[in-house]
Amino acid sequence: MSDKPRTVFASGLEGVVAAETRLSGVDGDAGELIIAGFPVEELASRASFEETVYLLWHDALPDPEQLGSFREALAVRRALPPATLDLLRSAASEGASAMDALRMAAGTVSLGASGDAGAVDGSYAEALALVARVPTIVAAYWRLVSGEEPVAPDKGLGHAANYLYMITGERPGSELVRALETYLNAVVDHGMNASTFAARVIVSTRSDVVSAVVGAIGALKGPLHGGAPGPALDVVFEIGEASRAEPVLREKLGRGERLMGFGHRIYRVRDPRADVLAAAAERLYASGDEELYGLALEVEKTALRLLAEYKPGRNIKTNVEFYTALLLHGLGLPTQLFTPTFAVGRVAGWSAHCLEQKVLDRLIRPQSAYVGAVDRHWVPPEQR
Amino acid sequence: MSDKPRTVFASGLEGVVAAETRLSGVDGDAGELIIAGFPVEELASRASFEETVYLLWHDALPDPEQLGSFREALAVRRALPPATLDLLRSAASEGASAMDALRMAAGTVSLGASGDAGAVDGSYAEALALVARVPTIVAAYWRLVSGEEPVAPDKGLGHAANYLYMITGERPGSELVRALETYLNAVVDHGMNASTFAARVIVSTRSDVVSAVVGAIGALKGPLHGGAPGPALDVVFEIGEASRAEPVLREKLGRGERLMGFGHRIYRVRDPRADVLAAAAERLYASGDEELYGLALEVEKTALRLLAEYKPGRNIKTNVEFYTALLLHGLGLPTQLFTPTFAVGRVAGWSAHCLEQKVLDRLIRPQSAYVGAVDRHWVPPEQR
Repeated sequence: MSDKPRTVFASGLEGVVAAETRLSGVDGDAGELIIAGFPVEELASRASFEETVYLLWHDALPDPEQLGSFREALAVRRALPPATLDLLRSAASEGASAMDALRMAAGTVSLGASGDAGAVDGSYAEALALVARVPTIVAAYWRLVSGEEPVAPDKGLGHAANYLYMITGERPGSELVRALETYLNAVVDHGMNASTFAARVIVSTRSDVVSAVVGAIGALKGPLHGGAPGPALDVVFEIGEASRAEPVLREKLGRGERLMGFGHRIYRVRDPRADVLAAAAERLYASGDEELYGLALEVEKTALRLLAEYKPGRNIKTNVEFYTALLLHGLGLPTQLFTPTFAVGRVAGWSAHCLEQKVLDRLIRPQSAYVGAVDRHWVPPEQR
Repeated sequence: MSDKPRTVFASGLEGVVAAETRLSGVDGDAGELIIAGFPVEELASRASFEETVYLLWHDALPDPEQLGSFREALAVRRALPPATLDLLRSAASEGASAMDALRMAAGTVSLGASGDAGAVDGSYAEALALVARVPTIVAAYWRLVSGEEPVAPDKGLGHAANYLYMITGERPGSELVRALETYLNAVVDHGMNASTFAARVIVSTRSDVVSAVVGAIGALKGPLHGGAPGPALDVVFEIGEASRAEPVLREKLGRGERLMGFGHRIYRVRDPRADVLAAAAERLYASGDEELYGLALEVEKTALRLLAEYKPGRNIKTNVEFYTALLLHGLGLPTQLFTPTFAVGRVAGWSAHCLEQKVLDRLIRPQSAYVGAVDRHWVPPEQR
């Protein structure tokens, strides 16, 4: 049963273009990712995160004055209201996952945002509050669940530096900040992935940006969503030393296991973000744990050689999760914060898609086909 | 830029069947709605809400023993943990909308559900907790925002009766309970509407049912989503007496205003739920405000006559919102609780779709087409 004569059936929506966007373009065959006109390789390692957010929301990089105002607009919105902190304390006392805590607390961004003095437009103010507060939520939750008090945000620090500061309580060096900004920029947007699509569906009813981003965080939680880099590094730790790479990986491949950190649904060639993050990791580890870095490269080299042997013709490449895990580990972030840190970057993309969808103002409402029982008839419970 | 040769572009996803479902079938041309095999007309006015929820989740009506266990399973899950009540108090102190409060508080259903003793399967236990707690959240918030303390749920009452009890503090008569159950059954599911679709997109990443339902509540908030019946009754109150129906409606139609309560995106003929709810309203008002009921019927009759005159050939009919508003008003519910009460019913359908999507286990991930700038190149801020 459906109400239109011409219908297309696509239960995963493969091959269906659900939106036009000026935010990012993914060419999986060519291995290209464009962020608002910039190749990701060019933008990610140069821009501050605030510049990238501004670029997505305004379709142009800010001049120095615009950038100053924008940094300030985000910085003044970082603090969490008491209701949000109370909720995080409750979540911590139950040992909720960091993603569940983030989803719950992000929902409360509606509180305290209504009286926002700087609000020009409701949706834009919501987007600012979300981008500003998501790092504070993640950091505060991590401190609480580790038995420590949250560290208040420091307005004097940039967005990325302040995130690391709120986690560790120490002001990070410039090489750490640059590495984190490169990561956040690299994952800020990526076409119509499931979380971004969820956000657009929600906001397409003329709902609010907070509701949409909360839905997106919920979608990101799922293991089928890309961007969950934790397991990619586990295999490196499991291998432990270079000489064990080949036997351990052969055993996994022989058992038919998927090697986390390799292969992507979209990219047939190398994920362009992988190069950016590999270079950032190289710079970061030059002044850090060079041994781990060398091991990771050895594992990668061996994995690619063995994948070509076990799965010939599949052309499986290192994916973004592998270098993400290496980079975030190098930044001192615990594995439990890898996906929440992805959200710290992606929330800017989700918000940008919401603003874009709001201008389009078109309900996203597909159809379903009924394949259930027919002609059932009512009988009272005692006759069943 | 897209990664597949055969693509379909559909920015609102019209004409795209995004899922097969055994839960409900909508035939807009015939004016038919099937709920798991039953015509909505047959099911809605006979089943208790618990029977309808069981039907959706198990694809069969429960026998008396199954029904007893199921009622109990819901009843024992109604109470809210302290963290949820604290959050509702904070929301009330800021005067958040009832839908915002519901969205925030529903997100906390993850708390306290993990230690659920009756949990056989995680998703099913989440669905039970959501259906059980959504009415408690709505009622508690209404009491708090009205300056009263929440009324604790009464395990001895059925789901619908307990909802009214928690709002008013008084145990409702059977005619009120029957009217509410008819409404909740009538709106329990309706194909692939935007909120249900948002829930399926979120859970398709293997995320959890709470995350998906929170996303659905966010989508339902938006005014383009159907099921927001508040404004349909406003025009009846504005008209006030039968003799004013024609001049007031002519003035609105002359100004090009849309008449709330008439017309639906899907149904070309009369919405089958409208008949069910019209009959339920007639029974309810027989022992209530007969004057208002008579006025509403007069407004409807006049509106249909004038719509045929002003928009000939469009065949615009009374929609489900019109009778919903009449029915919920007759139940003593304030307008602010109309959409949250819709959610009290629809949460069972959202949960059912999540359970169905979990079995299918297929990521919903469309594509986007990049239409933004190309070939931008980096210059430092001071050169912009």
